[in-house]
Amino acid sequence: MAQRVLAGMTMSVDGFITGPNDRPGTGLGEGGAERLHYWVFGGPWTYDSPPTGSPTGPDQKYLDETFSGAGAWLVGRVMHDAAEGWGDDPGFGVPVFVVTHRPRPAVTKGNTTFEFVTDGAAAALARARAAAGDRDVLVMGGANLTGQYLDAGEVDELTVTVAPVLLGAGKRFFDRALRPDLTLEPAGVIESPFVTHLRYRCSVKE
Amino acid sequence: MAQRVLAGMTMSVDGFITGPNDRPGTGLGEGGAERLHYWVFGGPWTYDSPPTGSPTGPDQKYLDETFSGAGAWLVGRVMHDAAEGWGDDPGFGVPVFVVTHRPRPAVTKGNTTFEFVTDGAAAALARARAAAGDRDVLVMGGANLTGQYLDAGEVDELTVTVAPVLLGAGKRFFDRALRPDLTLEPAGVIESPFVTHLRYRCSVKE
Repeated sequence: MAQRVLAGMTMSVDGFITGPNDRPGTGLGEGGAERLHYWVFGGPWTYDSPPTGSPTGPDQKYLDETFSGAGAWLVGRVMHDAAEGWGDDPGFGVPVFVVTHRPRPAVTKGNTTFEFVTDGAAAALARARAAAGDRDVLVMGGANLTGQYLDAGEVDELTVTVAPVLLGAGKRFFDRALRPDLTLEPAGVIESPFVTHLRYRCSVKE
Repeated sequence: MAQRVLAGMTMSVDGFITGPNDRPGTGLGEGGAERLHYWVFGGPWTYDSPPTGSPTGPDQKYLDETFSGAGAWLVGRVMHDAAEGWGDDPGFGVPVFVVTHRPRPAVTKGNTTFEFVTDGAAAALARARAAAGDRDVLVMGGANLTGQYLDAGEVDELTVTVAPVLLGAGKRFFDRALRPDLTLEPAGVIESPFVTHLRYRCSVKE
């Protein structure tokens, strides 16, 4: 199996990955932005009433297919900080590389080791690729990091998960122009009660 | 059959309905924006090589289902100007109301009558509703007009057609916050070789 770089982001129909005011402590921001991620938990939740549910069949299948091939994860610092709330054993089972400006020693929680990479997105990807071997590297946000890898032509498959929400403000997934030779080819749609996963193969013209 | 107001727009994965510089004469703008509408013609075309093809099965089915229930169309002036290029018999078969600032007498082409409404979006919708009787009113752009009707809570069903393109710049479908009580409920997905049609039922909380 050849290694692939898979990226995924959840956005509203109007293209936002957070609502307004997504400062630390407000999670995904205001304006009902929790609705973006109902699919992860199989139903409604709020910041005041943390989620406990499991994904529905189609969403679980998407997650299983994506996670089962993973040899390493790559996330930005904000995503990592959110994941820190996932407890003593976040259960990734593979190394997680965190792109950050703040040096920090590696941390092991259960079967997951977090390594903090301070010399940039390209260096972090190189380390994740090496750790993953012939398995996939998963880029699971944030938007800026994902955009950098798309722009570098490093992403083989992009899944845009569209939640049935209009947020009107917040942080956009696509907030700038990427390289014009980046081409998307439809690679299937997964429909669940909560979202639509749009999968695209990515390539850059030679 | 109860009358519904149906709205549809085609946008890129990054939310643009035109590429950059969509002045009159450049159609949908630059940057390969023709790709947004490959689905309408069942394949590639360019401004220099006008389209002649027909939609593929799933796209034709979507169009047939939408158009067959229509009793009136509503479009903005820019969409109308584009449609003027469709020749002596555009074939709508129902009245088309054009929201514009420029007064102009009604024009009949084949089985289609274009009426120009200069007293605003609400007045145009009232006239289209009256003309449609118990049939549907179709709002087929532009983005600004569609946004006005969504914001007024007048749209019963919204179809967002997502083309596998990143344009990076141009006119966004969703360029402002709409009323926060506007709720989208998934109403099905239609997958074609060229696009994904995301259908939503729209409502506003009482």
